[in-house]
Amino acid sequence: MPPLNEVRAALAGQRIETPSWAYANSGTRFKVFPQPGVPRDPWEKIADAAMVHRLTGVAPTVALHIPWDKVDDYGKLAAYAAEQGVGLGAINSNVFQDEDYKLGSVTNPDPRVRRKAVDHLLECVDIMDATGSRDLKLWFSDGTNYPGQDSIRARQDRLAEALREVYDRLGPDQRMLLEYKLFEPAFYTTDVPDWGTSYAHCVELGEKATVCIDTGHHAPGTNIEFIVAFLLRAGRLGAFDFNSRFYADDDLMVGAADPFQLFRIMHEIVSADALKPEAGIAFMLDQCHNIEAKIPAIIRSVLNVQEATAKALLVDAEALAAAQDSGDVLAANAVLMDAYSTDVRPLLREVREEAGLDPDPVAAYRASGYQERIEADRVGGTQAGWGA
Amino acid sequence: MPPLNEVRAALAGQRIETPSWAYANSGTRFKVFPQPGVPRDPWEKIADAAMVHRLTGVAPTVALHIPWDKVDDYGKLAAYAAEQGVGLGAINSNVFQDEDYKLGSVTNPDPRVRRKAVDHLLECVDIMDATGSRDLKLWFSDGTNYPGQDSIRARQDRLAEALREVYDRLGPDQRMLLEYKLFEPAFYTTDVPDWGTSYAHCVELGEKATVCIDTGHHAPGTNIEFIVAFLLRAGRLGAFDFNSRFYADDDLMVGAADPFQLFRIMHEIVSADALKPEAGIAFMLDQCHNIEAKIPAIIRSVLNVQEATAKALLVDAEALAAAQDSGDVLAANAVLMDAYSTDVRPLLREVREEAGLDPDPVAAYRASGYQERIEADRVGGTQAGWGA
Amino acid sequence: MPPLNEVRAALAGQRIETPSWAYANSGTRFKVFPQPGVPRDPWEKIADAAMVHRLTGVAPTVALHIPWDKVDDYGKLAAYAAEQGVGLGAINSNVFQDEDYKLGSVTNPDPRVRRKAVDHLLECVDIMDATGSRDLKLWFSDGTNYPGQDSIRARQDRLAEALREVYDRLGPDQRMLLEYKLFEPAFYTTDVPDWGTSYAHCVELGEKATVCIDTGHHAPGTNIEFIVAFLLRAGRLGAFDFNSRFYADDDLMVGAADPFQLFRIMHEIVSADALKPEAGIAFMLDQCHNIEAKIPAIIRSVLNVQEATAKALLVDAEALAAAQDSGDVLAANAVLMDAYSTDVRPLLREVREEAGLDPDPVAAYRASGYQERIEADRVGGTQAGWGA
Amino acid sequence: MPPLNEVRAALAGQRIETPSWAYANSGTRFKVFPQPGVPRDPWEKIADAAMVHRLTGVAPTVALHIPWDKVDDYGKLAAYAAEQGVGLGAINSNVFQDEDYKLGSVTNPDPRVRRKAVDHLLECVDIMDATGSRDLKLWFSDGTNYPGQDSIRARQDRLAEALREVYDRLGPDQRMLLEYKLFEPAFYTTDVPDWGTSYAHCVELGEKATVCIDTGHHAPGTNIEFIVAFLLRAGRLGAFDFNSRFYADDDLMVGAADPFQLFRIMHEIVSADALKPEAGIAFMLDQCHNIEAKIPAIIRSVLNVQEATAKALLVDAEALAAAQDSGDVLAANAVLMDAYSTDVRPLLREVREEAGLDPDPVAAYRASGYQERIEADRVGGTQAGWGA
Repeated sequence: MPPLNEVRAALAGQRIETPSWAYANSGTRFKVFPQPGVPRDPWEKIADAAMVHRLTGVAPTVALHIPWDKVDDYGKLAAYAAEQGVGLGAINSNVFQDEDYKLGSVTNPDPRVRRKAVDHLLECVDIMDATGSRDLKLWFSDGTNYPGQDSIRARQDRLAEALREVYDRLGPDQRMLLEYKLFEPAFYTTDVPDWGTSYAHCVELGEKATVCIDTGHHAPGTNIEFIVAFLLRAGRLGAFDFNSRFYADDDLMVGAADPFQLFRIMHEIVSADALKPEAGIAFMLDQCHNIEAKIPAIIRSVLNVQEATAKALLVDAEALAAAQDSGDVLAANAVLMDAYSTDVRPLLREVREEAGLDPDPVAAYRASGYQERIEADRVGGTQAGWGA
Repeated sequence: MPPLNEVRAALAGQRIETPSWAYANSGTRFKVFPQPGVPRDPWEKIADAAMVHRLTGVAPTVALHIPWDKVDDYGKLAAYAAEQGVGLGAINSNVFQDEDYKLGSVTNPDPRVRRKAVDHLLECVDIMDATGSRDLKLWFSDGTNYPGQDSIRARQDRLAEALREVYDRLGPDQRMLLEYKLFEPAFYTTDVPDWGTSYAHCVELGEKATVCIDTGHHAPGTNIEFIVAFLLRAGRLGAFDFNSRFYADDDLMVGAADPFQLFRIMHEIVSADALKPEAGIAFMLDQCHNIEAKIPAIIRSVLNVQEATAKALLVDAEALAAAQDSGDVLAANAVLMDAYSTDVRPLLREVREEAGLDPDPVAAYRASGYQERIEADRVGGTQAGWGA
Repeated sequence: MPPLNEVRAALAGQRIETPSWAYANSGTRFKVFPQPGVPRDPWEKIADAAMVHRLTGVAPTVALHIPWDKVDDYGKLAAYAAEQGVGLGAINSNVFQDEDYKLGSVTNPDPRVRRKAVDHLLECVDIMDATGSRDLKLWFSDGTNYPGQDSIRARQDRLAEALREVYDRLGPDQRMLLEYKLFEPAFYTTDVPDWGTSYAHCVELGEKATVCIDTGHHAPGTNIEFIVAFLLRAGRLGAFDFNSRFYADDDLMVGAADPFQLFRIMHEIVSADALKPEAGIAFMLDQCHNIEAKIPAIIRSVLNVQEATAKALLVDAEALAAAQDSGDVLAANAVLMDAYSTDVRPLLREVREEAGLDPDPVAAYRASGYQERIEADRVGGTQAGWGA
Repeated sequence: MPPLNEVRAALAGQRIETPSWAYANSGTRFKVFPQPGVPRDPWEKIADAAMVHRLTGVAPTVALHIPWDKVDDYGKLAAYAAEQGVGLGAINSNVFQDEDYKLGSVTNPDPRVRRKAVDHLLECVDIMDATGSRDLKLWFSDGTNYPGQDSIRARQDRLAEALREVYDRLGPDQRMLLEYKLFEPAFYTTDVPDWGTSYAHCVELGEKATVCIDTGHHAPGTNIEFIVAFLLRAGRLGAFDFNSRFYADDDLMVGAADPFQLFRIMHEIVSADALKPEAGIAFMLDQCHNIEAKIPAIIRSVLNVQEATAKALLVDAEALAAAQDSGDVLAANAVLMDAYSTDVRPLLREVREEAGLDPDPVAAYRASGYQERIEADRVGGTQAGWGA
């Protein structure tokens, strides 16, 4: 086991990015249940994100979604964020909510639509220049619903062409994160359905292109930690979109559905020494708090990632390697499970106290009066949401 | 093989119900793409359904969804439908779109919400009295998103209580169709997740309660035709909600994703002599035409059901039974595949011509000018949709 | 939270049955890797099971599998078991390993084979009379591999007839446990594929027939704790076959793949006060230790069930109910997670010490020299296995 | 639609390789049901494969499996095959059936075992030199059953090292086909679990390494034709192992479970003009005829591939492209379905007659007396099987 002070330092240095849209209303195709106090603009989303950071100490950046978070002056937005104590993180593009994108964006059979989509992506890089964001996150809803609807191969050609143009526009310190997803909203083919597709395009593009793993975007039974380990080995893991799921892309709070899986993922991260910020992996949340209170849910999610990380840090790497090398299946499994079975909440409370934080961020939020304040203040206007 | 005239008669007598909401806009949580010409009220939905029936000859009823299809005078609506050449079919309740239903309707922990939900269901029976509908279709989105959120068992108690009250309100010729669904919008537990749950409640309720199978509501790998056969044997199959899926509840056109599965389902129906209307199985579509033209998609869906049915009717039942009894696996499979491999489109064209219909309903629709007409006429107002 | 002494008492009184065949060789269709020291007959299996009980204190019975554990004198076997400190548990029938069963046993199209299969089941009841076993566990591999191969419905008729004959043979204190399984070895239809099928047959048979849940026998995404809760409410949960899986019926050690799921299952058990032996639920292991050492793996499995149970016992039921009733999603989830996050290993060590056991059964096994002894002694003869 | 004479020529020129082991006994972990007449050695397997080719005209090669098909003199075996009218095809390695491989072969933590495994693979290349085989097919059962059992990343390193050594041994006209599989026999991680892993290793190795797609080796919901299209575009599709499945790696007859999927796969092949032998895609069967008669099942499988191919060849590519380009979802889907709905059996009968074959190979086999002959002749000795 690593010395406890190193574990504490690693935990204190962890960085988790929260997404602006998780503070807004979300739902299913059946119903969006609005919640009182939900932000009405990017400024209020940033305020909420800053509150999460103040309480947890490990969520110092907030991801933006364009056009949902479009503002006239991104410099001003960045300054406001800094004032609140957070920074602006990844820029998430949106090429799925315009009428034109019914049959796809960058893979649309219509060249006019493809042009429009690529222009949006290029605009996102402009915004990155303004915000100082490092990462452009690309998720494409592109795909087809019916066999024969379009040529799978031609769509790959169009995808490659669009990615190339955007990639070439990136500045020297900017990166492209290419996300994949098995299905939804496309129900037959998706143009970037799995990590293999994303990886292959990234390799073709160059070193600034890396894969983003959304933990809810896989086929049933997929071993996500294998993908993590594989991409780390290949130097192509760029980011996580954390959330959890029992069925499909349920977008539940990370760690809520399968905390052991989250631990196994973080174990791969820790094993590859990829937790520290300089390793360049962006740990982001991407969730939908459809029925639970949003800010406390995001706090809870941050804590869940911390707990999984703490357990991963407690794995006795030497004992594990020894058991693995000797082929002792049960002993090796036991080393891992020893760490997982540990109750790390006391340790994390200590880490928070050392950082001058309340040891219980959820209780601290409840006690803060913040929720009552935003519910009282944010009246009128239009609550932010996906606008689907 | 049965005599061809019997096959033709069975096909001519087939009845498929189309759902009013499939003529309206629908989409995913990411985006609803509106289409020109979409109905703005129940009357226009019925007009579209009547058009589908005029062209196919086998879609004589249209299912209503309350409150989406709420009108002041259901007698007038029924009369209008009759005028158009169709009848009003099943009444579909909706207890998932009110703010109150965030944590459930009939299984909500709050008794006030449960009362409201049951009252809605009772109101639906009132509407059935007015429309002369036989079937009350119950689909509950009720469930939970997080472990611990609510008591699984208490929710079953509440469900049973609500179903009992509604069941007891049914008239002598009315039925309850209890639908099940694995997940969505609930992402941890669903209160009626599988056929077993629906079946058990139906048995407890009485003979007027039967199971409705939505072909998109199962876990991956579920053998749907087994469920069909089992429920037919138990006398508890009440209805189908037909659609197709590659992944989850994709709601694609029936027969589009796995036409062989649809054939196997219809083979169980035909084997049990349950195709004819007097067998009491309601064959309904329940689909979302998110990106394809709606009326032609519904026509195509009706044709797909017809083609699967025609193939099922062509199965040589005697040869099949002989091969099965002799334990000849390959011969038995070959008998089934012989029917499936047959191109039944010429036969169906004949059946249509005998009925005085155009042999190609899709082409007939295109030639009819109907689409152009509704696109021109239905301008202004608010297009119908799910209102999520 | 319940008083700790009650928790300790509940843990001390827990009963987990181990299966004789888990001590024997097992594998996949690709390879069975034999292990040194594996038993060569039922007597040696019982000796191993007794060793597990001596170390854990909660595994006082061993399930038999007929014909794998066939002996001439079951009274003598029972006496030997008693001498070793364990009792004989459920009798597991085997109607899948005779040439005659290629196309099924009790559902075979050939009446001669059906007769033979039913006779085997009746013989199992005779054995129960001799061993004093309460439970007859029925798992049928029956099913088909190809569409059309046999009539789904006719097979249900044959199944019902066979079950009836066996049920009627049961003594007043004997029970039938009807297991279900989605697939394998049948690859198209399985005659008892899901809990609904098992439940429906049990209800038809009578009160002595209950459902056995094997935790590895479900479709991906199936919520097992829902089934547990439903069957408990219906009074039809008879037993568990515990194991774990990432993919299909992997038969890994229980709790190894998804410890949180195991906890949720035990939470339903505890909530329904069904943990205590008099509740009549048989908690059995049914696993394959293909590559790991068998006896330590079974000990580990027993500990895993104990840990999940301990956590379930620690759930603060009052706080949970209060949060649930108030509709506080996050608070309710947090109550459950509080218990799950607790490290219960110290508590279990105490429970063992109070019972005069070594607090660490795995280490105690290693220190016992038992493994070395059986490896030295059990040389020659034929190791027990599935004989596939 | 392409001219019918071109379709006929394409069908007449199709090449499907049958696997020697499909003529042998196979089963599940529960039971292998032996069949009369099953071959006892490679010579008899080749005789059966030759019979399939004589009847179908499109199965001119047979794949070998080492060591199951080990002989002293491969030149003699090749000569015997030629005499029978067939050639020797791909060499399939087996590094999963030795005691040493319990924890893996080329990824085993023990370097001695890795050396042994690589030596076997090199021996397979020696055999290829002797048989003149072009393709070395690598399927690794390597993986782990329990979290922590071994290092995912270290196993990738070992895999890469082993593949490199074998790749470098390949002759100028030899290829490596790297197969992937989600799970079984490994139940937690598999070292080559998906196409992405196989693809990444192939790219690293060089141009002689290509991916082999086994149609039964995917997670539920995986879109196989997408992978086909992607790999064709990338020039990395080397081969198919055809079979079909409803659940996991069921190894049923290709086209039996989802004939529409097989058609969609062949549509990608035809669209990329990759059907013709010079395109370098090996179309192989890899199936288990556990309960059905083996030779007729293989004939039936060949016919199923032919029928799917014929339908794919009938797709009106111009009309499809036009509908796709215009964004007409329903029209594009209809073009594809038109071809799929066609009964191509008459066309295939013509193709066979033109080739001097019986138009109905299944009936011809039955009439040939071959089965009776082998059942009478192949008495005594040990039937070939997997030897699990």
